[in-house]
Amino acid sequence: MAKTNSVVGVPGNERINALNDGVFAIVITLLVLEIKVPDIPPDLVATELPHALREVAPKVLSHIISFLVLGIYWVGQHNMFMHIKRHNRVLLWLDILFLLCMASMPFPTGLVVQYGQEQISVVIYAGTLIITGLTLDAIWWYASHDHRLVDESMDPKLIAFVHRRVLLAPLIYLLAIGVSFISLLVAKLLFVVVALLYILPNPLDHYHHSKLHEQVTVWD
Amino acid sequence: MAKTNSVVGVPGNERINALNDGVFAIVITLLVLEIKVPDIPPDLVATELPHALREVAPKVLSHIISFLVLGIYWVGQHNMFMHIKRHNRVLLWLDILFLLCMASMPFPTGLVVQYGQEQISVVIYAGTLIITGLTLDAIWWYASHDHRLVDESMDPKLIAFVHRRVLLAPLIYLLAIGVSFISLLVAKLLFVVVALLYILPNPLDHYHHSKLHEQVTVWD
Amino acid sequence: MAKTNSVVGVPGNERINALNDGVFAIVITLLVLEIKVPDIPPDLVATELPHALREVAPKVLSHIISFLVLGIYWVGQHNMFMHIKRHNRVLLWLDILFLLCMASMPFPTGLVVQYGQEQISVVIYAGTLIITGLTLDAIWWYASHDHRLVDESMDPKLIAFVHRRVLLAPLIYLLAIGVSFISLLVAKLLFVVVALLYILPNPLDHYHHSKLHEQVTVWD
Amino acid sequence: MAKTNSVVGVPGNERINALNDGVFAIVITLLVLEIKVPDIPPDLVATELPHALREVAPKVLSHIISFLVLGIYWVGQHNMFMHIKRHNRVLLWLDILFLLCMASMPFPTGLVVQYGQEQISVVIYAGTLIITGLTLDAIWWYASHDHRLVDESMDPKLIAFVHRRVLLAPLIYLLAIGVSFISLLVAKLLFVVVALLYILPNPLDHYHHSKLHEQVTVWD
Repeated sequence: MAKTNSVVGVPGNERINALNDGVFAIVITLLVLEIKVPDIPPDLVATELPHALREVAPKVLSHIISFLVLGIYWVGQHNMFMHIKRHNRVLLWLDILFLLCMASMPFPTGLVVQYGQEQISVVIYAGTLIITGLTLDAIWWYASHDHRLVDESMDPKLIAFVHRRVLLAPLIYLLAIGVSFISLLVAKLLFVVVALLYILPNPLDHYHHSKLHEQVTVWD
Repeated sequence: MAKTNSVVGVPGNERINALNDGVFAIVITLLVLEIKVPDIPPDLVATELPHALREVAPKVLSHIISFLVLGIYWVGQHNMFMHIKRHNRVLLWLDILFLLCMASMPFPTGLVVQYGQEQISVVIYAGTLIITGLTLDAIWWYASHDHRLVDESMDPKLIAFVHRRVLLAPLIYLLAIGVSFISLLVAKLLFVVVALLYILPNPLDHYHHSKLHEQVTVWD
Repeated sequence: MAKTNSVVGVPGNERINALNDGVFAIVITLLVLEIKVPDIPPDLVATELPHALREVAPKVLSHIISFLVLGIYWVGQHNMFMHIKRHNRVLLWLDILFLLCMASMPFPTGLVVQYGQEQISVVIYAGTLIITGLTLDAIWWYASHDHRLVDESMDPKLIAFVHRRVLLAPLIYLLAIGVSFISLLVAKLLFVVVALLYILPNPLDHYHHSKLHEQVTVWD
Repeated sequence: MAKTNSVVGVPGNERINALNDGVFAIVITLLVLEIKVPDIPPDLVATELPHALREVAPKVLSHIISFLVLGIYWVGQHNMFMHIKRHNRVLLWLDILFLLCMASMPFPTGLVVQYGQEQISVVIYAGTLIITGLTLDAIWWYASHDHRLVDESMDPKLIAFVHRRVLLAPLIYLLAIGVSFISLLVAKLLFVVVALLYILPNPLDHYHHSKLHEQVTVWD
C-alpha cells in the first residue's frame, strides 16, 4: 500500500459517517416536522378540520418523495463507504459538498410539488439531482481511482459497476431536462422511474452480483 | 450461516443505529423546543404572564405524550437491534420507513391534543401508530425469519415473543379505532393503556424472561 | 458479577451516549440559530442596524446562559456515564426523562431573561433545574445502588461523592426559590453561583480527588 | 506518561467527536433548510416564479459561504482531534465554547451578505471568526502544551505547525478589521482569501509535510 503515507487511516471513517448520518437524520426529520397541525377557531373545528387536513395532503406527498429520494442517496453513500477504507482532506471536502446537495434537496422537491406545472421547477429539480449524483460519483472516482482509498485488491469490475450504478440517475435526469421541453408529465414520470430503479432490487444488480460474487464483499 | 454471502456484515449496524438515534434525538428535542416563551408588552407582564403560561400548558402535555410514545418506540427498536446482527438493503429501507413513521408522530399527537373531540383526530392518531407498529414488526419479521439477520442459535420462542410484544400495540390501536365510533373517551383511554403497558415493567415480560433466561441474551 | 444476567451489557452504552450527545447538540445549536439577522428596509440600514443589533443582545445573553447550563449537565452526564458500564430498560427511561429536562431548559431560561422581574419566572426556572438535577441523581442512584450497573469494585466513597456533587445544584436552587420571596436579585445571583461552582475547577473536588486518587478512575 | 492519572482516558474522545459532528451537521443542515419555497398565488405563478427564485439567490450564496466556512473549521477540528488522544474537564469546556462559536456563525455571515455595505457587519463577522480561531487554538494549546493530552512522542515542530496553521486565519481577519476602515471591498476579499487558503491544498502544507513526513502521522 504505497499510498498509506499520504492518507490518514486512523481513526477511520467513523466521523465522516457520523456526519452523513447526522445530516440525513436532520433533513428527513425536519421535512416531516414541518407539517404543522392547522389552527382552527373552536367553533369551526367540526366543519373545517377535514378540509384543512385535505389541504395538508400535497405537502405530505412532497415530503414523502423527498424522504425516499434522500433515502436512496443515504443507502447509496452508505454502501459506497463500506468499500472506502481511508480518507483524506480531499475526500472530506467532496463529502461536505455531497452533504450540501443532500441538505438542499427539500427546496427543489417543494418547487416541483407546488409549481410542477412550470418547466423551471422541473429543470431546477433535475439539475439539483444531477449535481448530487455527480458529487457522489466524484467521491467514488476520487476514492477508487488508482485504489487511492479502497483496498488494493478491489476488483476493477466492481469499481466500474459502482460508477455505472451511481451515474445512471444523473443520466436519466439529464434526459428528463430534455424531455421537459416537450412534455412536463413525461419528465416527471422519469423522476418516478429513477426512484423505483434505486429502491427496488433490480435484475441488473443480480446479474452483476452473480459475476462478482466469489471474489469481493457483496455490494448489496 | 449459509446466508452470509448475501448480507453485508461489516461494519455492522452502527450506522443504522446512529441514524435511528439521530432521528429520535431530533424529534424529541424539536418537540420541546417548539414551546416558545410568550411575547407580552412590558406594561402587561405582571397581569398577563400567569395567564399566558396557563395557555402553554396543553401544548406541554401534548409534547410530553409524544415524547413518551417516541421513547417507547426508541426503546423497542433499541432492544430489537440488540438481536439483529447484520443488515442489508431491505433492512435499511424498512428502517427508513420506520423513521418516517417516528418523525411524523408529532402531527397526529398534536391533532388529538388540539382536536381530541373530533373522531377523525383519534382515527388518524391510532392509524399512524398502527402503521408504525407494523413497520417495526416488519423489521423483526424480515430480520428473524429463517434467521436471516439474527444468530442461527436464536430461540424461536424469543422470536415469537418479540412479535407478540411489538404487535400488541397495533392491535389495541385497531380496537381503539372501533371503539371511537361509540366513545372517543374510551378510545383515548386505550392510548394511555398502551403507553403504560410498554413503559412499566410488566408481569408477562417477567414470565417470559424466566423461561428464556438460561439460553439467550436477556430481552430486558 | 452476579447481576450480569439481568443486564444487557452488549453493545454497551454507545447508543445512550449517542442519544444524549444528539439531544445536547441539537438544543445548543438551535438555541443559537434562533438569533436571526434583523430585516431592515434598505434606506434605513445605516441608521437602524446598530440599534437592531443592540436589541438582539439580551437574547444572545439568554442563549449563552442556556448554553453554559446545558454544558454543565452534559459534562456531568458525560462523567457519570464513564462509571456506568451497563444499562437496562429502567436506565433507558430515566435517561429519556433527563433528556426531556435538558430539551425543555431553553423555555425557563427565556422566561428569566425576558420576564426576570416576575417571581413566577424565577420559580419556574429554579423548579425545572431542581427536577433536572434530581433526574440526573436518580440515574446515578439507580445505577450505583447495590453496584447494579457500575463495577463491583467501585469505592462507596466515590459513589457518595458523585451524589453530593450532583445534588448540590438542586439544593441551591431550592434555596433560591425560598429567597425569591424576599429578593429576586439574590435568587438570580444564586443561579450564577451554581454555574460557576460547576464550570470552575473547585477546591472541594481536588480534596476528594486526592483522597480517591489511588484506587479509582479519577473523576475529573 | 506521568500525566495519565489526572486524565480520563477511557472511553476516549468518541463523545466529544460525536458532539462536534452533531453540532456541525445541524448547523449546515438548518442553514440550507431555511431556504423556503416562495408562496405565490396560483394565477401569478407563471410570471412571478422566476422573479421569486432570483430573490432567493443572495440567501443561497450566504448559506453556501457559511457552509464552506463551517466546513473549514470542521475539517480543522477533525484533524486536530486525530492527535488529541485524551480529554479532561477543561478540554470539554474549551470544545463547548468552540461549538458555541460554530453555532453562531450563521448570524454574522447573514449580516455580511445582507448588510455588507455597513462596516459594523464586516467587523462583527471578522470578530466572530477571530474568536472562533482563538478558541480552536486554545484547544490545541491546552492539549499539546507539555504534551498534556497528546502523545509524548509528538514532534514539537508538528505542534508549532498546527498553531501556525490555526492562527493564520484570525491574523488575516484582524488585518481585515483594520482594512475595513479604508475599504470594505478589500476587507471582504480577505475573507475569500482565508477560505481559499484553507480549502485548497497549499504549498506551505506540502513543505511542512515533507519535513515531518518520516516521524509522525501525516497531517493531511
